[in-house]
Order: sequence, then structure tokens, then C-alpha cells
Amino acid sequence: MSTPIRRALLSVSDKTGLIDLARRLSAKGVELLSTGGSAKAIRDAGIPVKDVSDLTGFPEIMDGRVKTLHPKVHGGLLGRRGTDDAVMGELGIQPIDLLVLNLYPFEATVAKPGCTLEDAIENIDIGGPAMLRSAAKNWNDVGVLTSPDQYDAALSEIESIGGLNRGTRFKLAVAAFNRVSNYDGAISDYLSALTLDESHEAIAGHAAFPDQANGRFVKVMDLRYGENPHQQAAFYRDLHPAPGTLATFRQLQGKELSFNNIADSDAAWECVRSFSKPACVIVKHANPCGVAVSLEGIGKAYDLAYQTDPTSAFGGIIAFNRAVDGATARAIVERQFVEVVLAPGYDEDALKAFGKKANVRVLVIPAPEHGDLSTAHPGNDCRRVGSGLLIQTADRGMVTADDLKIVTRRAPTEAEINDLIFAWKVAKYVKSNAIVYARDRQTIGIGAGQMSRVYSARIAGIKAADEGLEVRGSVMASDAFFPFRDGIDAAAAAGIRAVIQPGGSMRDAEVIAAADEHDMAMVFTGMRHFRH
Amino acid sequence: MSTPIRRALLSVSDKTGLIDLARRLSAKGVELLSTGGSAKAIRDAGIPVKDVSDLTGFPEIMDGRVKTLHPKVHGGLLGRRGTDDAVMGELGIQPIDLLVLNLYPFEATVAKPGCTLEDAIENIDIGGPAMLRSAAKNWNDVGVLTSPDQYDAALSEIESIGGLNRGTRFKLAVAAFNRVSNYDGAISDYLSALTLDESHEAIAGHAAFPDQANGRFVKVMDLRYGENPHQQAAFYRDLHPAPGTLATFRQLQGKELSFNNIADSDAAWECVRSFSKPACVIVKHANPCGVAVSLEGIGKAYDLAYQTDPTSAFGGIIAFNRAVDGATARAIVERQFVEVVLAPGYDEDALKAFGKKANVRVLVIPAPEHGDLSTAHPGNDCRRVGSGLLIQTADRGMVTADDLKIVTRRAPTEAEINDLIFAWKVAKYVKSNAIVYARDRQTIGIGAGQMSRVYSARIAGIKAADEGLEVRGSVMASDAFFPFRDGIDAAAAAGIRAVIQPGGSMRDAEVIAAADEHDMAMVFTGMRHFRH
Repeated sequence: MSTPIRRALLSVSDKTGLIDLARRLSAKGVELLSTGGSAKAIRDAGIPVKDVSDLTGFPEIMDGRVKTLHPKVHGGLLGRRGTDDAVMGELGIQPIDLLVLNLYPFEATVAKPGCTLEDAIENIDIGGPAMLRSAAKNWNDVGVLTSPDQYDAALSEIESIGGLNRGTRFKLAVAAFNRVSNYDGAISDYLSALTLDESHEAIAGHAAFPDQANGRFVKVMDLRYGENPHQQAAFYRDLHPAPGTLATFRQLQGKELSFNNIADSDAAWECVRSFSKPACVIVKHANPCGVAVSLEGIGKAYDLAYQTDPTSAFGGIIAFNRAVDGATARAIVERQFVEVVLAPGYDEDALKAFGKKANVRVLVIPAPEHGDLSTAHPGNDCRRVGSGLLIQTADRGMVTADDLKIVTRRAPTEAEINDLIFAWKVAKYVKSNAIVYARDRQTIGIGAGQMSRVYSARIAGIKAADEGLEVRGSVMASDAFFPFRDGIDAAAAAGIRAVIQPGGSMRDAEVIAAADEHDMAMVFTGMRHFRH
Repeated sequence: MSTPIRRALLSVSDKTGLIDLARRLSAKGVELLSTGGSAKAIRDAGIPVKDVSDLTGFPEIMDGRVKTLHPKVHGGLLGRRGTDDAVMGELGIQPIDLLVLNLYPFEATVAKPGCTLEDAIENIDIGGPAMLRSAAKNWNDVGVLTSPDQYDAALSEIESIGGLNRGTRFKLAVAAFNRVSNYDGAISDYLSALTLDESHEAIAGHAAFPDQANGRFVKVMDLRYGENPHQQAAFYRDLHPAPGTLATFRQLQGKELSFNNIADSDAAWECVRSFSKPACVIVKHANPCGVAVSLEGIGKAYDLAYQTDPTSAFGGIIAFNRAVDGATARAIVERQFVEVVLAPGYDEDALKAFGKKANVRVLVIPAPEHGDLSTAHPGNDCRRVGSGLLIQTADRGMVTADDLKIVTRRAPTEAEINDLIFAWKVAKYVKSNAIVYARDRQTIGIGAGQMSRVYSARIAGIKAADEGLEVRGSVMASDAFFPFRDGIDAAAAAGIRAVIQPGGSMRDAEVIAAADEHDMAMVFTGMRHFRH
């Protein structure tokens, strides 16, 4: 059931589509009310429009701070058609059936470098949110448009049936309350992060984390269940997802994504996009179980990554940092059961090959327009604990060969350096304690998730042996320092030739001496990569 | 610099402290304005008060929907003292220097079972947030109180200096914007979770997860750094933390908590509070590395938990589900380096013992007033991925002995059942793939975080052997089903006598046959506990 629209109030900060909207509403006989710049633009286009101040009989004052905060406006928006008709008639309150409004650009203002507190405060819209909330509360009788991308559908409905359907009005009201919530959340985030100087006259600092943190997420999809079938779950994205990050994925084929698919895909994607050369990462249970880089291309990288641990690769998530070609796609589907494939693109041949396995989930994540995949910024990380939340900046740290501090008598060879950096990048994405054995930019054994480091090293060795991979001549990465020399002694016995680790243990001297005894090369990164 | 307060507008839904506030303001010569029920209460107490409708010359209409949305109110709140004096004088706008306002109880209304859409909509306050936002925007000149617990400090300041300091006004303004953000977030959550029936007349359903999710968290403390030193971090809690959950902790002594301390404490606490008998859980790197239950009390439970893996217990987090006594506290500090101790309480002796190790972080988490620790509800879980968020209900599932389905010829003995349930509870909190060996309600070996289940089993066995713990006669828990019989065969060879696992593999028959061959007892839970 639609209500006829007799009168609309238009007050927008973003003028996109305003004139077309005004013209089409006017053509349907809708009386237009407006304020300030919006009124001027409409009038200049030759469309009849009435100023809100004519309606209220009250001037726009205080540089626009007060213009619509008036009972004739809010009564017109909030009056219940039927119930409040008498009082509206008595007080000369005319019903406003449609509100078209977008807010002062507070978010954009405070995002500008050098934004002062005064700028920010001045850009807090008071009248706008009040009207949005009035119109949305009275959704039974009033329609509310908060964004130019809603205009076309609304106009079509108005032009065809003279008003907006009840279902449309409800959806628009929810969108309006969501918009207001995002707006107020941004204000709360901004203000509660500020510290003022002693005179309280100016901003002294901006805390990294506001006193109140307001998460704002849009649902992408409900999930069949959570980490386990007895848990309910949904997947959300940020209001403005960063290009190149997981949440920007498009699914090209395959079954519905599960909670664990998405979590594992993120681990695979974050790891693979840290490499600049063609790379493949296979993830299972949130850990990389095979990673390789190959100058021959991603097909070869996949072969090598698969070899690390074929058992775990079964049912895994496979990510590439280059577009997938037909040969690689065929190699995957012919060889193994795969849950998800991720890449920045696919050629036609590849899509044809995956098409033969209709269940395989194929996701494309386009590279950012500017910069490569590795530059995408995933936003702050968070960790839920009982009735609490840990928030931290993402782990964006990464050393280059130039940052490495050689601590042993023997310096690593160039080939060893390449492998050390490769193993280090992998270790960053393996759950702590993490030990990675690697050779020729292929993982040889991965020891993940242990409560003491020495077991991670043992697991890496056991896995390499089980797959018949030769540890001798490999390098080892450790996500945190070795507390004792035993880890180095064991590695030497297995044939490890070079080690990369943060350093910083009280017993570094002892650990270095052990490496020297075995003629190993060891480098310190000065940077740890715990990941739990 | 304080502004004198000449006029205050009081409009509260929660009348706590209202009369005292009104009386003290009035005694300082402040003119009081009010509306509806607040005005009546003040007048009944014999305190002079003016109705807002007398100020505006506009009646309160539409059952209170429109009463304060008037330029005389908002001009009084928003007018810049100095800049806007002329226009205020001209239009008869009197400055309002203090706003005391709390909002219609939207959150409480929608929390009531059976709340209709109409109830909810009627409880969306329009005038209140508009006034709060006006007053807070104009914090330079206006004070704003949003909660009775702010009254006393504000009154003291007003009584001693005639107004509010600039710093106070800024803090109150931020609090007001935070309150509005929380209010609008709650409305967005509620409305965006609704689905209406076909006629759009009534609520047809309430989605488990709203279309827009608005997280609202209050900062507890900034942290020195995040999971790694190059990451920044802070710890937040929910607006209303559930009693008995981690975020309600109070730190009694010790160094500042780190990011990893808090994350590990949560794992330890969630695990220990799942036991009803006296229990101890030791956590390292997010995994339990020793767990025990003892009817002799928590001292004995600690001894047994420690034995599982003394190497990992070094520098660990130790949690108890009973108040800690002096003997237990002394046993800990004399034996090992410990980062954090958690318990629902401590006796004086225990505090004295910990007091000798000033660095040990001692946290108390009081049990909920109603119900025991295990009933505390930690709220939804979430997992951050690149520009996205996975949200799921917490894993609150837990089987009892009655739920177990015996699938082997041999049924488990009563002692085995006790151990199976014990091992199962531990496995729930071990990172997947998780294998737990246990005997007499003590963990014997824990295999955590592996990409294939068979390695978790191997690690559990290796660890038990390394610590000289006898696997023979133990039980085994697996957080998910065994895909093949090899895990059972290996367990039998190690001396495992009984197994608990979800079941549900395509090869369950083969797995059951293997157990029968070894005369093992095996039970299915029908419930999986992945935890990554």
C-alpha cells in the first residue's frame, strides 16, 4: 500500500542527481521544499521550490546551524496520518511525505590531514540526522532517501504508483537509521580519540585507539553455520573495504563459502600476496601447509607447494598472486580435492577447467588499481575475548635482505639469503610457535602451533622426512627467538645450513656460538611475528 | 575557564537523582526548564520550573513526538555565545547553558521478549538525541549530562565555580556523542535484523545477524604493543560485560597486562570455567598445555596440570575455577615462572605468597551472582579477515555423559567415561586439529594446531613419552572425526583404551571396526569443536 506523495523536503550535501530528482518529483505534482544551496540549485534549474523558512516562518540563523529544527518541519515528518490530522490542521503543519537528505561530510572532513577540532565540530550535522530520524521513525507514512543511488528506484515507484510501497519505505527507513548510526559512530570514534592541550583550546594528540570503538560492518551473507555446525554465523565487510583484500572477493563458481573457508582463505591470501614473484600458498586449518615461489610461474609454484604436504593439501585452500592459467587449473583439479581457489584473475582456459568441478569455489580478488597486491591494507586486526575485544594494528612489518643482521662468522650465500627471506615470509603466517624449513623457495617442513619452540622444530623435521624431502642444505625460519641453543643443535643435526630469527634472547651469545660451531649462517631480523 | 550557568533544560527518562539535581541547581539561581514527567516531578517537589512549551510558545503535540524540536530550544543550545548574541536577542532565544537528558529506553524495550515493531518504533527518541547533539556540538558554551552518575561531579563544580570547566565540558560532550552513537547503533542493529511479513505490517522474523552490525566497545586500556612489538594495540570491553567473563577482571597485583597475556588468559579462563569440579588449566601460546581436575582441590589439580608439560608451563597463564589458597599460591611461585594467574578469588595467604613475586599478574574474575562460572555467556565471537569480519555465536555446545553414543562392542567403564568427558572438554579449547590424551582427569599429552589429525596424535604421544607419562590406560579425545582408521590403530599401539570423537566420517564403519579389533571403547558426541 503506497501513500501519495504530496510534499517533499530536499536538503542535500551531495548534489548528484538532485536536479533530475527535483524535476521528476515536480512533474508528478509534488510540492518541493528545500534549504540553502539545495534550494538555490533547484530554483536555478527553473523548478518551483519553496524555502523551508517560508514554511516555518522562522529565518535560517547561526550560519545554518538552525534552519530545520522546527515543529512545522518535524511535525510534518512525524505526524501520524490519520491520528494527528486534527492537530496538524489546527497548527498549520503540512505533511511532508518524502525526505531527501544527505549529511554534512563529517567522515571526509576528519579524514583530511590537518583537520582542526573546529573544522570537525562545524561539520557535525545537527538538523540533518534529526530529520532523517523523524522521517525514518514515521516510516509508516513517510519515505526517506539518504543517498543518490536510491533515487532512481524510488522515482520509478513514485512515477508508476504515485508513492512508495510500504516495503520500500521500511527498507529506506532502516537504511536511514544505518546511515545515522554510521555517522554518529564516526563522530564518536573521532572525538573519543582526541586529547586536548592544557588550555583545552586545541587538539594535543590523537590516540591510536579511541575511548569508544564503534565497529561498523555490512552483512555480505549469512553462513550455513559457524566454525562448527552448532554455531550460527554471518560474514560482514567494512563500509569501505580496501582494494586487494579478501572482503573484495567475487565468487565465480562453486559451493557456498563456509565460515572456515573464509577464515582459511584470508590466511592464504595474506600470505601469498606478501610475495612479489609468482607464488602459491596452500592452507589447511588456518596454517600454510605448503608454500613455494617459482620464477617459472605459478604452475611450478603450485607443484612445489603441493609436494610439502600432500596429505594436508587435500581439501585445502589454494591461493596465487598471479592470474591462473589453464594448465595450472587442470593440474589442481586432476590431482587433488580443493575447497577454494583464490587469485587476482583467471584466463578462459582456467575457468573451463574449474568448470568441470562445479563444487570448487573459485574466488577472484582484483589487485588494487594503484600499487600491487602487497600494498593492500587490511585494516586493524581484532581478537574477541569474553565480553571484550583486543584491537591491534595489522602486522604489516616485513624485513628486506638489507635489514638482516648477520651474527655468525659465516655470512649466508645469496641463495641462502633468498631462501631465508622466503622462509621468514612463510613463518609470519604460520601459527606460533612457528618453524619453517625451506630450500630453493619451497617449504620443506612446517612446524606450527606448538606451545614450545623445540616441538615445532621437531614437527618440521618429521614432516619433511615423512614426505621424503631432503632437509640437508635447507634454511630454517623461527617466528620468535630461540631461548636455548638446543633448537640450533637439532637443526644442524638435520642438515640446516642457515637460520633466520628475530634474536633478542638473553642467551643469544650461546645460540650464536652453537651456529658458529656447526658452520651455520644466522641472521637476526630484529622483528618478531607471533600469530596465534 | 568556566561559563556561568544561567539556564538548564532537564528532560530525563531515568529520574534517578533528578530532584536533588534540580534543587541544587535552583539554589545556585539557575532557571530550570523541563518537559512532561520531568517537569511534573520537579514541580511536585516544590522547585520552580518552567515548561519548555512556555518557552517555545508551541504546545507539546503528537503524544510527545514533538515538544523540543523548536528553534528556541535548539537556538538556545547551539547559539555561539558572543557570535550569535544579536540574533538570539532579536528572536527572543534565551541561552540554555546546561542540558540534562537521558533517552527513551530503546535498548531495554527491544530486549524484552515479545516486543513489537510498534513498541520499538515508539521508543525511538527523536527530540532527545537532537538536543544532546546540539548541546555537545556547542560544548564551547554548553554542558551536557547524559547519565545520573555524572550529576554529582558536575554539581560540585557548578557549586564551587558557578559553571563547568572547559575540560569538563569537552569530556561531557564526548560522552554525549558516545551515548548517541550507542543509541543509534542499537536502533540500527535492531531494525536491520528485522524481516517483515508479506503485508509489511508485522515482524515476520528476526535475523540472527543484522544487515548492519555495529560493534560498541569501551576502552579499558591502551596496551604497550600488540601481538608483536611493532603493532599498536588496546583492550576494550563490551558496554555490558557478562558477569563471570574475562573482561570483568580486576588486577590485584603485577606488571601491566600485554596483548598476548589477555588473549591467553581468555583461553585459560574459558577452559577452566567449563569444569564444575576443582580444576586447573595452564595455557601457553593460546593452547592449554596442561589441564587437570582433582576432587582433592585445586592445589592437586595444579600439580597434575603442571606435570603434563613443565617446559611449556614455564611463563604460562594459570587459571583456576575455585578461590586460590596459600599452599597453591606458594607451590606456583616456588616452582615456576608464571605470567598471569586467574581465579574467582584468593585468600589472604595466597595474596601474601603472590605478593613476594611483584611481577606476577594476579587477576580476579568474580563468579556471576546467579549461577556458577560455567553459565557466564561470553557473547558473540568474531574473527577479523582482510577488510571483513566473521561473526558467530560462541561455541557453547557441550555434551554430557548421557549424550554419548557408544559405537563399539565394549562400552566404556565409568572411570573411562569420566576421563572421556574430561578429555573432550579440554579438546574443545585446543587449537584444531586437536588430540588430547588423558587419564584420571589429567592431561597426558596434547597435540595441537596441526594441518592433519594424524600429526596431532603423534605429537600427543611424543609429548607424553618426553615427560615420562604413561599413555597405557589413557583415553583419547579428537575435536573432529577420524577420516581413516590409522589414527585409531596408532592410538591402540600407544595403549589408548577409549576414544571420544564426533563421528560422522564416511569411514565411520572402518574406524569403529578398528576400535573393536583393539577392544577399545569408543563414543560419538555428534558435536564437533573446531577452534582455530
